[in-house]
This record gives sequence, structure tokens and C-alpha cells, in this order.
Amino acid sequence: MTESSSFLIPRGFRFAAATAGLKLSGRPDFALIVAGAPASAAAAFTANRVTAAPVQVAKEHLRSTGGRVRVAAINSGNANCAAGQAGLDAARATCAAAARQFDCRPEEVFPASTGIIGIPLPAEKLIAALPSLAASLGDEPARFLDAARAILTTDTVEKTAFAHIDLASAAAHGATPAGAPAEVRIAGFAKGAGMIHPQLVPHATMLAYVLTDAEIAPPVLAAYLADAVEASFNRISIDGDTSTNDTVLLLASGASGAAIGPGNSAFAAALNEVCISMARQMVADGEGVTHVVELRIEGAANDAEALRVATAIARSPLVKTAWAGCDPNWGRIVAAIGAAGAPIRGPHAVCGDPHAVRGDPRGQVLVPGVEIDPQRIDISFGDLPVCRHGAAAPEFDEASAHAYISQPQFSVSIHLHQGQGSCVFFTTDLTAEYIRINAEYST
Amino acid sequence: MTESSSFLIPRGFRFAAATAGLKLSGRPDFALIVAGAPASAAAAFTANRVTAAPVQVAKEHLRSTGGRVRVAAINSGNANCAAGQAGLDAARATCAAAARQFDCRPEEVFPASTGIIGIPLPAEKLIAALPSLAASLGDEPARFLDAARAILTTDTVEKTAFAHIDLASAAAHGATPAGAPAEVRIAGFAKGAGMIHPQLVPHATMLAYVLTDAEIAPPVLAAYLADAVEASFNRISIDGDTSTNDTVLLLASGASGAAIGPGNSAFAAALNEVCISMARQMVADGEGVTHVVELRIEGAANDAEALRVATAIARSPLVKTAWAGCDPNWGRIVAAIGAAGAPIRGPHAVCGDPHAVRGDPRGQVLVPGVEIDPQRIDISFGDLPVCRHGAAAPEFDEASAHAYISQPQFSVSIHLHQGQGSCVFFTTDLTAEYIRINAEYST
Repeated sequence: MTESSSFLIPRGFRFAAATAGLKLSGRPDFALIVAGAPASAAAAFTANRVTAAPVQVAKEHLRSTGGRVRVAAINSGNANCAAGQAGLDAARATCAAAARQFDCRPEEVFPASTGIIGIPLPAEKLIAALPSLAASLGDEPARFLDAARAILTTDTVEKTAFAHIDLASAAAHGATPAGAPAEVRIAGFAKGAGMIHPQLVPHATMLAYVLTDAEIAPPVLAAYLADAVEASFNRISIDGDTSTNDTVLLLASGASGAAIGPGNSAFAAALNEVCISMARQMVADGEGVTHVVELRIEGAANDAEALRVATAIARSPLVKTAWAGCDPNWGRIVAAIGAAGAPIRGPHAVCGDPHAVRGDPRGQVLVPGVEIDPQRIDISFGDLPVCRHGAAAPEFDEASAHAYISQPQFSVSIHLHQGQGSCVFFTTDLTAEYIRINAEYST
Repeated sequence: MTESSSFLIPRGFRFAAATAGLKLSGRPDFALIVAGAPASAAAAFTANRVTAAPVQVAKEHLRSTGGRVRVAAINSGNANCAAGQAGLDAARATCAAAARQFDCRPEEVFPASTGIIGIPLPAEKLIAALPSLAASLGDEPARFLDAARAILTTDTVEKTAFAHIDLASAAAHGATPAGAPAEVRIAGFAKGAGMIHPQLVPHATMLAYVLTDAEIAPPVLAAYLADAVEASFNRISIDGDTSTNDTVLLLASGASGAAIGPGNSAFAAALNEVCISMARQMVADGEGVTHVVELRIEGAANDAEALRVATAIARSPLVKTAWAGCDPNWGRIVAAIGAAGAPIRGPHAVCGDPHAVRGDPRGQVLVPGVEIDPQRIDISFGDLPVCRHGAAAPEFDEASAHAYISQPQFSVSIHLHQGQGSCVFFTTDLTAEYIRINAEYST
């Protein structure tokens, strides 16, 4: 039903990029996606309580239009976050100017920004670039790639993904009757190399734009996006920092003439494929990354606990530095799993509580720790057992394990033997190069 | 009431250290504290669900004796964790041999280990060292220092702290009648330089030993310890990794002849002072640390939320690398605060949920995010305002801020303007040297 396909751009969209002057490097820093007519839209945004001005404005705009977007305006080099009223004003001024340029309502413009936090965005630079952007819009792959590149910051390569489905076969799995056979295309571009631990809630400085030429109503589009985000961007972490600007936007132009209703498994699979591909490209291009690690958690009490275990491992500096050193130190992984087993406690007396007695927990358990029996933990590196029943596996061979994790990509499988919960999560090592990038570069 | 005092060793304890041969470096790796008679004991252990064999055995022993310890046996170089039944056997064999050596019950021996995880502990090396340890026991400062040094791993210096109180004045604040005037001494030694983010529950590879010659019953001792731990070891983080071995042991020999009951504020203050001093020494000696940072959180909804904000900042690689680079990038701090504002959610449908609609959260909120209004966040570096109302402070001067945080120790104050909750937390930067230590050294 789905297959990878290169550079099939969904119909109904045009693209352009410019150098507005936000980046000291002088590289392109402003991209536009312009739909031929207002496109059906769904979005997911960061769960960070501090959100950038464009995130706030984009949410307002989607609410106002009921899920319609004509123009997506994306700048890199400045996050327009923690900039007070001036930041909101800058985001709105950019949208207003784009609306004038493309003859639409300001609310039909969807803004996004990525870059340094705390510096007011010079909207006038973006506004000044709009006429030349309008003149260079195009629907060919080269323009799509221009846009994909202009949104990058510390990324070293653009992240793009493509899929298409043949609706005649897809309709057999769908909830709506098929019209004439039609090809539906999906394409996306994304950025993100640091401050990457998205926690997206429906409606993430990961930015991802996914386009399709299917005709899909906004609430249905939102449901497809929520599922795809959960299986992709919410299953990766580079450094454990959740950004203030993370945003995923899914637009459906309808230009294929093919309508898709709820529950179309072929479309869902193709959309998931595109999102998962982009998420993994982000991890592979993570700041200073020398090893990409696939974590396969199985046997957790439920899927949510599997995700908590994966997250604890992905956020452990000691695990990540061992990977950087190709050190098959599975003991650090066991320690990180155990840390996920600690409950999250609520407020407690800090000092001077005369009623405290030995053994009393110092605060109510709000969230129990992940269900773990240390003696049931099994860990493999690829096909090599390294830990069984919570201790070194009898067949553990340090040299083989070292050789395996010296590869640029490897897999760590963990079985908790508690239940049926599982997840697949992609993360990275932590290297001196990551430190260099982030100690020397203000992002 | 209390004052810092150097090398006043609490009466009733003797110390020794030896090189048992666990460390490749050939440095001392086995320390003993031996009480003249079984001492009243209270302990706090890691909240990690994977606990080392000595942690499990020490808990059993304390339960069995009702809080009495004759010998504390501490090895470095091997954590005796994730070593299965062999690990438990090794811990018990060591305790049994120490009991024979010192003519006490095995349950009166309190074991602890720190070092690499997943390698069986060669108990026979520890056991073989016991006779020479017994022969070299002494109560002079040099022996105390020998013990303090033998428990170190990646630490570069020993961590010790001392206090004493005059019970005649202390009793005026206490709940028990004072006997004759008496001096009560408190002394501690500790280790910890990596895998340091203790989450101790009453009963942490931070190890800390605190001794006093006051006479205090075990349940009362436990209450004092719980409060002191909460204000000290549970208020520091080096790398955010919570160890499988963290242990704090407080022993009271009674050898001063002075009895202390519940609610003695002078004793509590002196104990807190000793624990806080050791906790801060750990942070200052953290792996690769070039900046020690005091986080002062004020204006949180409550103390627990203040601690969650401090922890989020202390665990952010982007904040910590900015500090390493002396980069006054307060925007990363704002982002970390905002991440603490994201709620913790429970299980949710991962894929294929046809009922999802736009804006629906994908899981029940188990713990609400910290109460944050981004526009009320104020941040100062020392006395230098850098962020006010969530945006750059008008008087923010990058050069001054850079100069301030170029110091080896500095303070970051955050006011959330939500309530009266506050906390003080000590943490560190994250440097390329930390990566080198942990990518090249198996711990």
C-alpha cells in the first residue's frame, strides 16, 4: 500500500526560501509553504509551559480558522521565545505582512521559529524578504529542498521523507467510499539536532511540516496526526531537553481529488512512515552524535511504563557516555532502569517534622515507580545477551559486545518480564562534541 | 550553638583502611568504622529500584537489630550490584567474616560498596584484609582520614565535615532534660563525584557516614537523619543519574554521656551543617566540574514544586553546557523551567485510536505540571538581573553576566511569583572532561 518514493511533492503547495539576515552565518533562514487555497490543517505543539510567541500565535490562528492554513512562515536563527510582548508583536506583524503578500487572512498564516531564545525577533527583516519569496515560489523538488534547508540550525543535513498511496486499494481499508482511483502523496521536511526530547500534545525546537494532497477534514486530520506524532516524534530524544518551540504541522490540500475519512489504515501507515523517517533522521543528525541507538523495551507492565524506562535510559548521561566510548557497560543501563522504578512523590515536610519515624516515606506517592523486578531484567546488545536475570549473562563476551556497539547504529533490547507493554525509542550517545557545540554556540 | 571544628572525632569509634586489591590503581579500597559497643543507627538508602547487594543486606541487618551497628564495612572499586545471588553471597560472607573478626553478630555489620556495576565482588579479597585492618584500627584523625580516602572512586579529594555542640546550651532547646554539661561531637566522611542525583528515602553511589557520640535512640536518630538528608544530599545533582548504591549511615555511640531526645534544634542544626557541607563538597568535586552553581528557587507554589524546577534545571544538558562555556544564555534556563511545567501523563492509546480529536490530551494527567506563568519568571545571576517578566531584563548586560558566571562558583536565583515555595539546590556544569571520564572509565 505504501512505498518510499523520492520527491513526489503533494500537489497544491508551493515553496520558497530566502536569507533574511537572522543567522550570523549568512545562510538561508526563512522558508514559506504556500497552499493554492486554504488547506485543512492539524498541528501538535510542545508541552513546555514556556512557549515561543509563534507557538502562541499559531494556536490562536488555528482556533480562529477551525483548522485552515494558507501560508506556513518559518524562520531559523531566532526562536522568538522569552521576548515578551515584543515577541508576540513580531510574530503577528510577520503574519499580517504575509497575509497582505498572499491575499489571505492573517489567521491563515501559521508562524514558527527556531534558534536562540531571549532575543527579540527582528520581524522587519522577515517582512522585507516576503516579495522576493513570493516571486521565487515553486512546486518543484528544488524549491521544497530550499525550504527544508532554510529551517535548519545546528543540523548538518536536511530531513525529508516521502510516501504515496494508491487510493483505489487504500479505500478497501478505509471508512469512506472511494471515488475514482487516485494517488495520494505525503511529503515532509523537518529540523532538529539539539534540545530534542519532544513531548508533543495534539495541537514540538523540532519543527516538522507534513503535506498531503488528500482531502481530509481538520478533525480527522488531527486524529491521524496525533497517532503519527505519538509513534514518531514522541519516541525520540537527543539530549533530554524539551524545547519551547516544537511544532508539527500537517496540511492537506485536497488537490489530489481523493477524499480520506477516519480509519484509513493505508493513509495512517504512510503518514506514520513519513513521520518516523523524519524523527529518525533528526536523531541521526543530533548534535555531536556518533552512535544512534534503537531501544526496544518489552515486557513492561504497559506501554506507558515501557516509555518511562526508555526515557530514563535515553536521559542518562552515564549510559550515553558509555555508548560514546563504545563501552559495553550494561550495568549503567540496569541503574537507569532502576531509577525509573523510583516513585514520583508529592510535597513533604522538608525540615523539622517531629513525626518522622524511620522507614516513613517523606511524601505521598503521586506516581508509582515503574514495575521492575531487578532479577527479571534481561538485556541484549543486538543479538548478544549481556545481562540475564539482572546479572551478567553467562555468554556475555566483552570483546564481542564492544565490537557490536562500536558500530554507528546499534540496538539495545530490554525485557522486563512484567507484562505486555512495549515501545521502540530512538536516542543517541553523548559526546565531547555535543559539549563543544553547546558550550561555544548560543542557541 | 554550633561551630565548625576540625578533626574533633566523636568518641566511641575507631577507623582503619586497607588496599584489598579491588582497584586497578592499587589505591586503598576497603575501610572500616568499628564502634566500641553496638551503636544506635539510622540509615537512608537510594530510591533506585535496582539496589546493590550491600544495600539489600544492610536493610535486612538494620531491621534485624532494630537499629544497632558495630562495624561499617565499605569497599570501593566494585559496586556489588547486578551480580545476582553471587553478589548477595559476597556481601553476607564479608559481614560474617567481619563479625568473627570483631566478635559481634553478622547483623551488626553494615556493608556498603561503590564502583563498577555488574562484576561479582571478590569477597575473599576483603576478608583477607580484615586481620590487618583490625590491627591498625585507631581513633586519631589520621585513621579517620584513611577511611575517608579509601572509599573514594573518581573523587579527587576526601569529603569530611565536623561540628560540635555544648549540650548545656543545647538542652535549653531540646525535649529531654540535660544531664551535666557535655560536648557532643558530630563528624562525617563521604564520597561521590558521578552518578550523583541522590533520591534518598529514609532507611543513596554517594556514600556518607556520619558519627556522633551523643546517646540517641534509633527512632529518634532516624528522624534527625531524614530531615538532614532532605536538606542536604537530596538537594544536589551532578549528572542526574541516581545510583543503585547510595547510602547514608548515621551512628550514635553515646560515648559522650550526653543523651539527646527528639526536637533538639541545636543537634539538628549541627547535623544539617555536617550533611550540607559534605553534600556541597561532593558537588565541588564532581566529575569534570568547572563551575559549581547554587540554584535559589523562590516564589514557587510550594517547596516540592520549587524542587521540581531546580531539578529540571540541574538535569538540563543545554543549561549545563552553557555554564561550562561561561555563556550567560538565560533563555535555556527559561526553557528548562517551562519543561518542568509539563504535566506527567499516564497510559494512553499509542496508535489507531479512532476517537482522538484535535486538542485532546493523549493520557490522563497524573501529576500536573509545576505552576508557572512564563511572564512572571525573574532570573538573576548573583545580583545581576538577566530576565524579568519572562524576557530579557532591561539592565541585562551580557559582558557583566559573562564575567560573573566565569567564576568557579556562582549563584542563579529564580523567582516564579506563584507562592511561598522555595529551595536551595547545588549543581554543576557539564564539561567535555565529564564525557572523557565516563566514556573512558568503566564505573
